[in-house]
Amino acid sequence: MLKLYYTPDTCALASHIALNDAGADYTIARISFAGEEQRKPEYLAINPKGRVPALVTNRGILTETPAILAFIAQSYPRAALAPFDDPFRLAQVQAFNLYLCATLHVAHSHRMRGARWADEAASFADMQRKVPESVAACFRLIEDNMPAGPWVMGESYTICDPYLFTMAQWMEADGVDPARFPKVSDHRRRMSERSRVRSAIAAELA
Amino acid sequence: MLKLYYTPDTCALASHIALNDAGADYTIARISFAGEEQRKPEYLAINPKGRVPALVTNRGILTETPAILAFIAQSYPRAALAPFDDPFRLAQVQAFNLYLCATLHVAHSHRMRGARWADEAASFADMQRKVPESVAACFRLIEDNMPAGPWVMGESYTICDPYLFTMAQWMEADGVDPARFPKVSDHRRRMSERSRVRSAIAAELA
Repeated sequence: MLKLYYTPDTCALASHIALNDAGADYTIARISFAGEEQRKPEYLAINPKGRVPALVTNRGILTETPAILAFIAQSYPRAALAPFDDPFRLAQVQAFNLYLCATLHVAHSHRMRGARWADEAASFADMQRKVPESVAACFRLIEDNMPAGPWVMGESYTICDPYLFTMAQWMEADGVDPARFPKVSDHRRRMSERSRVRSAIAAELA
Repeated sequence: MLKLYYTPDTCALASHIALNDAGADYTIARISFAGEEQRKPEYLAINPKGRVPALVTNRGILTETPAILAFIAQSYPRAALAPFDDPFRLAQVQAFNLYLCATLHVAHSHRMRGARWADEAASFADMQRKVPESVAACFRLIEDNMPAGPWVMGESYTICDPYLFTMAQWMEADGVDPARFPKVSDHRRRMSERSRVRSAIAAELA
Protein backbone atom coordinates (compact mmCIF):
# COMPACT_ATOMS: atom_id res chain seq x y z
CA MET A 1 0.00 0.00 0.00
CA LEU A 2 1.38 3.39 -1.03
CA LYS A 3 1.15 6.42 1.25
CA LEU A 4 1.39 9.96 -0.09
CA TYR A 5 2.46 12.78 2.19
CA TYR A 6 0.94 16.01 0.91
CA THR A 7 0.00 19.55 1.82
CA PRO A 8 -3.07 21.17 0.23
CA ASP A 9 -2.34 23.68 -2.56
CA THR A 10 1.11 22.27 -3.26
CA CYS A 11 2.58 20.32 -6.15
CA ALA A 12 1.73 17.12 -4.23
CA LEU A 13 -1.67 17.32 -5.92
CA ALA A 14 -0.10 16.15 -9.18
CA SER A 15 1.04 12.86 -7.63
CA HIS A 16 -2.32 12.50 -5.89
CA ILE A 17 -4.21 12.81 -9.16
CA ALA A 18 -1.78 10.42 -10.88
CA LEU A 19 -2.42 7.81 -8.17
CA ASN A 20 -6.12 8.07 -8.99
CA ASP A 21 -5.38 7.86 -12.72
CA ALA A 22 -3.31 4.73 -12.10
CA GLY A 23 -6.00 3.06 -10.03
CA ALA A 24 -3.47 2.65 -7.24
CA ASP A 25 -4.27 1.50 -3.74
CA TYR A 26 -3.01 4.30 -1.48
CA THR A 27 -3.60 6.44 1.56
CA ILE A 28 -2.78 10.11 2.10
CA ALA A 29 -1.27 11.88 5.10
CA ARG A 30 -1.45 15.65 5.50
CA ILE A 31 1.57 17.72 6.50
CA SER A 32 0.62 21.15 7.81
CA PHE A 33 2.90 23.92 6.55
CA ALA A 34 1.07 26.33 8.89
CA GLY A 35 2.17 24.10 11.76
CA GLU A 36 5.69 23.81 10.27
CA GLU A 37 5.26 20.04 10.35
CA GLN A 38 7.54 19.68 7.33
CA ARG A 39 10.50 20.79 9.50
CA LYS A 40 9.77 18.54 12.48
CA PRO A 41 11.92 15.47 13.17
CA GLU A 42 9.03 13.08 12.51
CA TYR A 43 8.67 14.31 8.95
CA LEU A 44 12.36 14.89 8.30
CA ALA A 45 12.82 11.17 9.03
CA ILE A 46 10.49 10.54 6.08
CA ASN A 47 11.83 13.29 3.80
CA PRO A 48 15.09 14.94 4.90
CA LYS A 49 14.40 17.73 2.41
CA GLY A 50 11.43 18.93 4.47
CA ARG A 51 9.20 19.17 1.43
CA VAL A 52 6.14 17.50 -0.01
CA PRO A 53 5.32 15.25 -1.72
CA ALA A 54 6.89 12.09 -0.36
CA LEU A 55 5.61 8.69 -1.46
CA VAL A 56 6.09 5.77 0.91
CA THR A 57 6.38 2.48 -0.97
CA ASN A 58 7.05 -1.05 0.24
CA ARG A 59 10.69 -0.59 -0.85
CA GLY A 60 11.36 2.86 0.54
CA ILE A 61 10.44 6.50 0.22
CA LEU A 62 10.47 8.52 -3.00
CA THR A 63 10.57 12.29 -3.42
CA GLU A 64 10.57 14.84 -6.28
CA THR A 65 7.35 15.14 -8.25
CA PRO A 66 8.63 14.19 -11.73
CA ALA A 67 10.31 11.07 -10.29
CA ILE A 68 7.17 10.09 -8.38
CA LEU A 69 4.99 10.65 -11.43
CA ALA A 70 7.26 8.47 -13.59
CA PHE A 71 7.30 5.82 -10.85
CA ILE A 72 3.50 5.73 -10.77
CA ALA A 73 3.33 5.51 -14.55
CA GLN A 74 5.87 2.68 -14.74
CA SER A 75 4.35 0.79 -11.81
CA TYR A 76 0.83 0.78 -13.29
CA PRO A 77 1.46 0.15 -16.97
CA ARG A 78 -2.17 -0.66 -17.75
CA ALA A 79 -3.08 2.96 -17.05
CA ALA A 80 -0.70 3.99 -19.88
CA LEU A 81 0.31 7.26 -18.19
CA ALA A 82 3.73 7.52 -19.86
CA PRO A 83 5.27 6.02 -23.04
CA PHE A 84 7.91 3.85 -21.35
CA ASP A 85 8.30 1.83 -24.55
CA ASP A 86 9.48 4.86 -26.53
CA PRO A 87 12.64 6.58 -25.23
CA PHE A 88 12.12 9.75 -27.26
CA ARG A 89 8.46 10.23 -26.32
CA LEU A 90 9.24 9.41 -22.70
CA ALA A 91 11.99 12.05 -22.75
CA GLN A 92 9.52 14.59 -24.12
CA VAL A 93 7.15 13.78 -21.26
CA GLN A 94 9.95 14.07 -18.76
CA ALA A 95 11.30 17.29 -20.28
CA PHE A 96 7.86 18.89 -19.98
CA ASN A 97 7.60 17.87 -16.34
CA LEU A 98 11.18 19.03 -15.69
CA TYR A 99 10.32 22.47 -17.00
CA LEU A 100 7.36 22.66 -14.63
CA CYS A 101 9.53 21.51 -11.72
CA ALA A 102 12.77 23.41 -12.24
CA THR A 103 11.58 26.59 -14.00
CA LEU A 104 7.86 27.27 -13.45
CA HIS A 105 7.64 25.99 -9.88
CA VAL A 106 10.92 27.72 -9.02
CA ALA A 107 9.63 31.03 -10.43
CA HIS A 108 6.43 30.60 -8.41
CA SER A 109 8.37 29.83 -5.24
CA HIS A 110 9.94 33.28 -5.25
CA ARG A 111 6.59 34.68 -4.12
CA MET A 112 6.56 32.92 -0.76
CA ARG A 113 9.92 31.17 -0.34
CA GLY A 114 12.45 33.92 -1.00
CA ALA A 115 14.31 33.01 2.19
CA ARG A 116 15.71 30.01 0.37
CA TRP A 117 17.81 32.31 -1.80
CA ALA A 118 18.20 35.65 0.00
CA ASP A 119 18.05 37.22 3.46
CA GLU A 120 16.75 40.79 3.15
CA ALA A 121 13.10 41.83 3.28
CA ALA A 122 13.72 44.19 0.36
CA SER A 123 14.91 41.26 -1.74
CA PHE A 124 11.81 39.25 -0.90
CA ALA A 125 9.61 42.18 -1.96
CA ASP A 126 11.59 42.52 -5.20
CA MET A 127 11.19 38.79 -5.87
CA GLN A 128 7.46 38.98 -5.22
CA ARG A 129 7.08 41.84 -7.69
CA LYS A 130 8.79 39.78 -10.37
CA VAL A 131 6.61 36.66 -9.99
CA PRO A 132 3.74 37.75 -12.28
CA GLU A 133 6.30 38.34 -15.06
CA SER A 134 8.49 35.27 -14.52
CA VAL A 135 5.58 32.85 -14.08
CA ALA A 136 3.74 34.31 -17.08
CA ALA A 137 6.88 33.83 -19.18
CA CYS A 138 6.78 30.13 -18.32
CA PHE A 139 3.12 29.82 -19.27
CA ARG A 140 3.86 31.72 -22.50
CA LEU A 141 6.47 29.13 -23.44
CA ILE A 142 4.09 26.29 -22.54
CA GLU A 143 1.16 27.87 -24.41
CA ASP A 144 3.23 28.48 -27.54
CA ASN A 145 4.56 24.93 -27.65
CA MET A 146 1.49 22.95 -26.57
CA PRO A 147 -0.35 20.87 -29.16
CA ALA A 148 -4.03 21.50 -29.80
CA GLY A 149 -4.88 18.91 -27.17
CA PRO A 150 -6.88 17.58 -25.61
CA TRP A 151 -3.82 16.75 -23.51
CA VAL A 152 -0.30 18.14 -23.04
CA MET A 153 1.20 15.47 -25.27
CA GLY A 154 -1.68 15.59 -27.77
CA GLU A 155 -4.07 12.66 -28.02
CA SER A 156 -2.65 10.68 -25.09
CA TYR A 157 -3.26 11.61 -21.47
CA THR A 158 0.05 11.37 -19.56
CA ILE A 159 1.69 12.32 -16.26
CA CYS A 160 2.20 15.78 -17.75
CA ASP A 161 -1.50 16.53 -17.41
CA PRO A 162 -2.01 16.40 -13.64
CA TYR A 163 1.25 18.32 -13.17
CA LEU A 164 0.35 21.17 -15.54
CA PHE A 165 -3.12 21.33 -14.01
CA THR A 166 -1.62 21.62 -10.53
CA MET A 167 0.66 24.51 -11.53
CA ALA A 168 -2.11 26.25 -13.49
CA GLN A 169 -4.19 26.32 -10.30
CA TRP A 170 -1.68 28.87 -8.94
CA MET A 171 -1.97 31.40 -11.79
CA GLU A 172 -4.35 33.83 -10.12
CA ALA A 173 -2.41 33.86 -6.85
CA ASP A 174 0.78 34.50 -8.83
CA GLY A 175 -0.80 37.51 -10.55
CA VAL A 176 -1.05 35.83 -13.95
CA ASP A 177 -4.19 36.33 -16.06
CA PRO A 178 -5.36 32.91 -17.30
CA ALA A 179 -7.15 34.54 -20.25
CA ARG A 180 -3.74 35.21 -21.84
CA PHE A 181 -3.20 31.45 -22.13
CA PRO A 182 -6.26 29.87 -23.79
CA LYS A 183 -4.78 26.40 -24.37
CA VAL A 184 -3.55 26.16 -20.78
CA SER A 185 -6.92 27.43 -19.55
CA ASP A 186 -8.85 24.95 -21.70
CA HIS A 187 -6.66 22.17 -20.37
CA ARG A 188 -7.27 23.33 -16.82
CA ARG A 189 -11.04 23.32 -17.33
CA ARG A 190 -10.90 19.89 -18.98
CA MET A 191 -8.87 18.51 -16.07
CA SER A 192 -11.12 20.11 -13.46
CA GLU A 193 -14.08 18.20 -14.90
CA ARG A 194 -12.47 14.79 -14.34
CA SER A 195 -13.80 12.91 -11.35
CA ARG A 196 -10.29 11.66 -10.50
CA VAL A 197 -9.15 15.26 -10.19
CA ARG A 198 -12.18 16.41 -8.24
CA SER A 199 -11.90 13.52 -5.79
CA ALA A 200 -8.19 14.24 -5.18
CA ILE A 201 -8.91 17.91 -4.44
CA ALA A 202 -11.85 17.00 -2.23
CA ALA A 203 -9.77 14.47 -0.28
CA GLU A 204 -7.02 17.03 0.34
CA LEU A 205 -9.48 19.56 1.69
CA ALA A 206 -11.50 17.08 3.76
CA MET B 1 23.71 10.92 -35.24
CA LEU B 2 23.05 12.91 -32.05
CA LYS B 3 24.18 16.52 -31.67
CA LEU B 4 24.65 18.11 -28.27
CA TYR B 5 24.48 21.88 -27.91
CA TYR B 6 26.58 22.90 -24.92
CA THR B 7 28.39 25.75 -23.26
CA PRO B 8 31.60 25.08 -21.28
CA ASP B 9 31.21 25.10 -17.48
CA THR B 10 27.48 24.44 -17.61
CA CYS B 11 25.33 21.45 -16.71
CA ALA B 12 25.60 20.33 -20.36
CA LEU B 13 28.78 18.55 -19.30
CA ALA B 14 26.68 15.87 -17.58
CA SER B 15 24.96 14.90 -20.84
CA HIS B 16 28.28 15.07 -22.67
CA ILE B 17 29.89 12.60 -20.26
CA ALA B 18 26.83 10.34 -20.42
CA LEU B 19 27.08 10.24 -24.23
CA ASN B 20 30.65 9.00 -23.80
CA ASP B 21 29.53 6.49 -21.16
CA ALA B 22 26.86 5.20 -23.55
CA GLY B 23 29.28 4.82 -26.43
CA ALA B 24 26.98 7.04 -28.51
CA ASP B 25 27.83 8.44 -31.92
CA TYR B 26 27.47 12.20 -31.52
CA THR B 27 28.82 15.64 -32.33
CA ILE B 28 28.93 18.74 -30.15
CA ALA B 29 28.17 22.37 -30.97
CA ARG B 30 29.25 25.21 -28.72
CA ILE B 31 26.88 28.04 -27.75
CA SER B 32 28.71 31.09 -26.45
CA PHE B 33 27.04 32.67 -23.44
CA ALA B 34 29.58 35.52 -23.67
CA GLY B 35 28.27 36.17 -27.18
CA GLU B 36 24.65 35.77 -25.95
CA GLU B 37 24.20 33.12 -28.62
CA GLN B 38 21.64 31.33 -26.47
CA ARG B 39 19.23 34.26 -27.01
CA LYS B 40 19.70 34.57 -30.77
CA PRO B 41 16.96 33.42 -33.18
CA GLU B 42 19.14 30.64 -34.60
CA TYR B 43 19.46 28.97 -31.20
CA LEU B 44 15.93 29.80 -29.98
CA ALA B 45 14.71 27.82 -33.01
CA ILE B 46 16.54 24.83 -31.51
CA ASN B 47 15.67 25.49 -27.87
CA PRO B 48 13.00 28.15 -27.23
CA LYS B 49 14.10 28.21 -23.59
CA GLY B 50 17.44 29.76 -24.54
CA ARG B 51 19.36 27.35 -22.37
CA VAL B 52 21.80 24.50 -22.74
CA PRO B 53 21.93 21.58 -23.13
CA ALA B 54 19.80 20.68 -26.12
CA LEU B 55 20.14 17.28 -27.75
CA VAL B 56 19.22 16.97 -31.42
CA THR B 57 18.00 13.47 -32.26
CA ASN B 58 16.63 12.00 -35.49
CA ARG B 59 13.12 12.42 -34.04
CA GLY B 60 13.41 15.91 -32.64
CA ILE B 61 15.12 18.02 -30.01
CA LEU B 62 15.25 17.24 -26.31
CA THR B 63 15.99 19.58 -23.41
CA GLU B 64 16.31 19.40 -19.60
CA THR B 65 19.32 17.53 -18.26
CA PRO B 66 17.53 14.79 -16.26
CA ALA B 67 15.31 14.01 -19.27
CA ILE B 68 18.30 13.91 -21.62
CA LEU B 69 20.27 11.69 -19.23
CA ALA B 70 17.37 9.24 -18.94
CA PHE B 71 16.96 9.28 -22.73
CA ILE B 72 20.63 8.40 -23.21
CA ALA B 73 20.39 5.62 -20.63
CA GLN B 74 17.26 4.12 -22.16
CA SER B 75 18.55 4.44 -25.74
CA TYR B 76 21.82 2.61 -25.00
CA PRO B 77 20.72 -0.19 -22.69
CA ARG B 78 23.98 -2.12 -23.02
CA ALA B 79 25.76 0.67 -21.15
CA ALA B 80 23.44 0.01 -18.17
CA LEU B 81 23.39 3.65 -17.08
CA ALA B 82 19.98 3.47 -15.36
CA PRO B 83 17.83 0.63 -13.94
CA PHE B 84 14.94 0.89 -16.39
CA ASP B 85 13.80 -2.60 -15.42
CA ASP B 86 13.17 -1.57 -11.80
CA PRO B 87 10.63 1.26 -11.27
CA PHE B 88 11.68 1.93 -7.68
CA ARG B 89 15.42 2.08 -8.40
CA LEU B 90 14.81 4.16 -11.50
CA ALA B 91 12.74 6.58 -9.43
CA GLN B 92 15.61 6.84 -6.93
CA VAL B 93 17.99 7.67 -9.77
CA GLN B 94 15.56 10.24 -11.13
CA ALA B 95 14.86 11.74 -7.70
CA PHE B 96 18.59 12.26 -7.14
CA ASN B 97 18.95 13.98 -10.50
CA LEU B 98 15.83 16.05 -9.86
CA TYR B 99 17.33 17.36 -6.65
CA LEU B 100 20.46 18.41 -8.51
CA CYS B 101 18.36 20.09 -11.20
CA ALA B 102 15.62 21.81 -9.23
CA THR B 103 17.34 22.55 -5.90
CA LEU B 104 21.16 22.52 -6.18
CA HIS B 105 21.40 24.03 -9.66
CA VAL B 106 18.70 26.58 -8.80
CA ALA B 107 20.59 27.62 -5.64
CA HIS B 108 23.78 27.95 -7.70
CA SER B 109 22.01 30.03 -10.35
CA HIS B 110 21.29 32.77 -7.84
CA ARG B 111 24.97 33.75 -8.01
CA MET B 112 24.90 34.81 -11.67
CA ARG B 113 21.28 34.66 -12.85
CA GLY B 114 19.41 36.68 -10.25
CA ALA B 115 17.69 38.67 -13.02
CA ARG B 116 15.46 35.67 -13.60
CA TRP B 117 13.77 36.26 -10.26
CA ALA B 118 14.33 39.91 -9.26
CA ASP B 119 15.16 43.31 -10.72
CA GLU B 120 17.21 45.28 -8.18
CA ALA B 121 21.01 45.26 -7.90
CA ALA B 122 20.69 45.05 -4.11
CA SER B 123 18.65 41.86 -4.47
CA PHE B 124 21.28 40.31 -6.73
CA ALA B 125 23.98 41.11 -4.17
CA ASP B 126 21.84 39.60 -1.41
CA MET B 127 21.30 36.45 -3.49
CA GLN B 128 25.02 36.17 -4.19
CA ARG B 129 25.83 36.39 -0.49
CA LYS B 130 23.43 33.53 0.20
CA VAL B 131 24.86 31.11 -2.40
CA PRO B 132 27.67 29.63 -0.26
CA GLU B 133 25.08 28.74 2.40
CA SER B 134 22.29 27.49 0.12
CA VAL B 135 24.59 25.45 -2.13
CA ALA B 136 26.44 23.99 0.88
CA ALA B 137 23.10 22.94 2.37
CA CYS B 138 22.41 20.94 -0.79
CA PHE B 139 25.80 19.23 -0.65
CA ARG B 140 25.21 18.51 3.06
CA LEU B 141 21.99 16.67 2.22
CA ILE B 142 23.72 14.77 -0.59
CA GLU B 143 26.75 13.90 1.56
CA ASP B 144 24.60 12.68 4.45
CA ASN B 145 22.48 10.45 2.23
CA MET B 146 25.10 9.11 -0.18
CA PRO B 147 26.14 5.48 0.09
CA ALA B 148 29.80 4.62 0.66
CA GLY B 149 30.28 4.42 -3.08
CA PRO B 150 32.03 4.09 -5.32
CA TRP B 151 29.08 5.66 -7.13
CA VAL B 152 26.06 7.76 -6.20
CA MET B 153 23.76 4.72 -6.25
CA GLY B 154 26.35 2.44 -4.63
CA GLU B 155 27.96 -0.31 -6.68
CA SER B 156 26.39 0.64 -10.01
CA TYR B 157 27.54 3.60 -12.07
CA THR B 158 24.47 5.51 -13.30
CA ILE B 159 23.40 8.79 -14.91
CA CYS B 160 23.56 10.30 -11.41
CA ASP B 161 27.36 10.20 -11.50
CA PRO B 162 28.15 12.57 -14.36
CA TYR B 163 25.50 14.97 -13.09
CA LEU B 164 26.80 15.12 -9.52
CA PHE B 165 30.35 15.47 -10.84
CA THR B 166 29.29 18.40 -13.03
CA MET B 167 27.67 20.25 -10.13
CA ALA B 168 30.57 19.48 -7.78
CA GLN B 169 32.89 21.23 -10.23
CA TRP B 170 31.17 24.49 -9.25
CA MET B 171 31.78 24.24 -5.48
CA GLU B 172 34.80 26.54 -5.26
CA ALA B 173 33.24 29.23 -7.44
CA ASP B 174 30.12 29.05 -5.27
CA GLY B 175 32.19 29.59 -2.11
CA VAL B 176 31.71 26.06 -0.81
CA ASP B 177 34.67 24.24 0.77
CA PRO B 178 34.88 20.73 -0.77
CA ALA B 179 36.73 19.44 2.32
CA ARG B 180 33.44 19.63 4.24
CA PHE B 181 32.01 16.94 1.93
CA PRO B 182 34.44 14.02 1.80
CA LYS B 183 32.15 11.55 -0.02
CA VAL B 184 31.24 14.10 -2.67
CA SER B 185 34.93 15.04 -3.01
CA ASP B 186 36.02 11.41 -3.33
CA HIS B 187 33.38 10.91 -5.97
CA ARG B 188 34.56 13.98 -7.82
CA ARG B 189 38.15 12.76 -7.81
CA ARG B 190 37.09 9.28 -8.94
CA MET B 191 35.07 10.77 -11.79
CA SER B 192 37.87 13.13 -12.82
CA GLU B 193 40.16 10.14 -13.34
CA ARG B 194 37.86 8.53 -15.92
CA SER B 195 38.99 8.96 -19.49
CA ARG B 196 35.37 9.48 -20.63
CA VAL B 197 35.14 12.46 -18.31
CA ARG B 198 38.53 13.89 -19.22
CA SER B 199 37.80 13.62 -22.94
CA ALA B 200 34.45 15.39 -22.55
CA ILE B 201 36.05 18.26 -20.66
CA ALA B 202 38.92 18.47 -23.16
CA ALA B 203 36.49 18.52 -26.10
CA GLU B 204 34.47 21.36 -24.55
CA LEU B 205 37.58 23.47 -24.04
CA ALA B 206 39.13 22.68 -27.42
